Amino acid sequence: MATIGVDLGGTKTMAVLVDDGVVQAKAKRATPVSGGPDGVIDTIVRAVTKIDPDGRASAIGIGVPGPVIPGTGVLPAAPNLPGWDHDVPVGDLLTERLGRRPIVVDNDVNVATLAEHRLGAGVGVDNLLGVFAGTGVGAGLILDGVLRRGPRGLTGEIGHSFVAFRDLTSNGPGRGELDDYAGRRSMEQKARWLVEQGEDTVLFDLAEGGRLKSRIWAEAMDASDALCARILDEAAAALAAAIASAIVLIDLELVVLGGGLVERLGESFRKRVEEKLMERSFAGIATPICAPKMGDTGGAIGAALLVESYG
Amino acid sequence: MATIGVDLGGTKTMAVLVDDGVVQAKAKRATPVSGGPDGVIDTIVRAVTKIDPDGRASAIGIGVPGPVIPGTGVLPAAPNLPGWDHDVPVGDLLTERLGRRPIVVDNDVNVATLAEHRLGAGVGVDNLLGVFAGTGVGAGLILDGVLRRGPRGLTGEIGHSFVAFRDLTSNGPGRGELDDYAGRRSMEQKARWLVEQGEDTVLFDLAEGGRLKSRIWAEAMDASDALCARILDEAAAALAAAIASAIVLIDLELVVLGGGLVERLGESFRKRVEEKLMERSFAGIATPICAPKMGDTGGAIGAALLVESYG
Repeated sequence: MATIGVDLGGTKTMAVLVDDGVVQAKAKRATPVSGGPDGVIDTIVRAVTKIDPDGRASAIGIGVPGPVIPGTGVLPAAPNLPGWDHDVPVGDLLTERLGRRPIVVDNDVNVATLAEHRLGAGVGVDNLLGVFAGTGVGAGLILDGVLRRGPRGLTGEIGHSFVAFRDLTSNGPGRGELDDYAGRRSMEQKARWLVEQGEDTVLFDLAEGGRLKSRIWAEAMDASDALCARILDEAAAALAAAIASAIVLIDLELVVLGGGLVERLGESFRKRVEEKLMERSFAGIATPICAPKMGDTGGAIGAALLVESYG
Repeated sequence: MATIGVDLGGTKTMAVLVDDGVVQAKAKRATPVSGGPDGVIDTIVRAVTKIDPDGRASAIGIGVPGPVIPGTGVLPAAPNLPGWDHDVPVGDLLTERLGRRPIVVDNDVNVATLAEHRLGAGVGVDNLLGVFAGTGVGAGLILDGVLRRGPRGLTGEIGHSFVAFRDLTSNGPGRGELDDYAGRRSMEQKARWLVEQGEDTVLFDLAEGGRLKSRIWAEAMDASDALCARILDEAAAALAAAIASAIVLIDLELVVLGGGLVERLGESFRKRVEEKLMERSFAGIATPICAPKMGDTGGAIGAALLVESYG
């Protein structure tokens, strides 16, 4: 039976109609940057109606950029969606518009991890962590073949795990969380702070006054920019430390490492994280790190698998 | 139906006969410090025979001081048992001597956590972490009411999680793992190293040439020894950081914090860890830390619950 999956991102909204793991139809819309939840819900409804005008899909899954209160479809906050600074009952709002079938809402990183486990890099591996680095770092956790949410929906908030007592390596901002080293927002703050201390970098020239997007970091890396190399090295070390801690705590067989920043930096960065992870391995037990396989539609496809994953 | 639980420790071996959660009989033996596995297996057999001479117990569970290869009953290494530096098939060796009934072997911290969950501080809480600090720090993990082992038996090796990139706070030994700060072995090394750097402490005077046992740390703390206070403060901070990371990764509702060192330091130390954990909480979500309730026989009682926990 066909199901619909929607990946709600800060810049774009992607909807897919999936039958037996195969995408039958696809629609992409810009996520509105003003108008708050109403405009975003409209956008989702239009994308869903486009790929399934007769409402024949048996269920709808939605991946959203923030933690979801388990079992409620409520998103308490979504820092990447303007105006979403209060509880938004995404599930209920969509049921009003698209009702008469199950609608399941989950975190975007959870659905991306689910897609990798069922159809991508993690097929056949029952205990894995999907780590996705972008503005911040998030993770999805599969244990015994089941996507885990946890009683309060916190599961996978690896960006808020601690890799340092405090940011001793640079005296820059942050309190020692993984996000402080490997989240793009903090990496930009740190670069800016280091420039204020008198250091040189091509990063801000490349950005031409804009934000330091993933592409900019990749270009500065290719240009052998020393400050960029140092921040990326810390990012790799922090990712390795957080992943190593996760492995000894819950015994993972595989780590899928992706996200906008990692995809742009490419395989050499992933290899660097894997080398640092090996240095930190417990009793020499190796845990491989691999790239996601699902590409741009991974999140939406994972969302389409959500209903089944709760079944 | 009555079952037997054995807690095999570095200094003592405790066996209990448990029926419906109640201890019916108990035996305690010194764990032999020489003779390797044979002597230890003999000791276990004698303790079990003492409390159940007719072999009527339906099953036997054994808690051992080291990780167990899942489903095998094999202990690859036990640093606290002299001569156990190779694979020891504890399950098979005991089956030869006590056979004709299920014998299950698991990690000592896992069984202590199981006991707290079923009969102690964690009754009614389905997602909890039991953290036990002694020579090193270990943890047991209950998820959805089930004791989790993991595919390679690594689950709960929290002492090897990373709380610092490296030991920057003191330039002492270690690579930034929780054990480097909150394991008694490393704490002693650090104290010794700081004395070599010219610092003062009453720790080694109190120990009179012996090891810095938990009792010594508690006495030095009561004597307001500054070096002791500093090392204990780092231990509390490191425990809080590792626990905070575990909470955001797997969403835990309760942490039971015990072990020889913590028990000696008492409630003030546990409160200090809890305060530091609150400072590091994600989105202000509090997770309580409580003391174990099972006391000295907790490990053995948990071992007696092992067979049922696999059922």
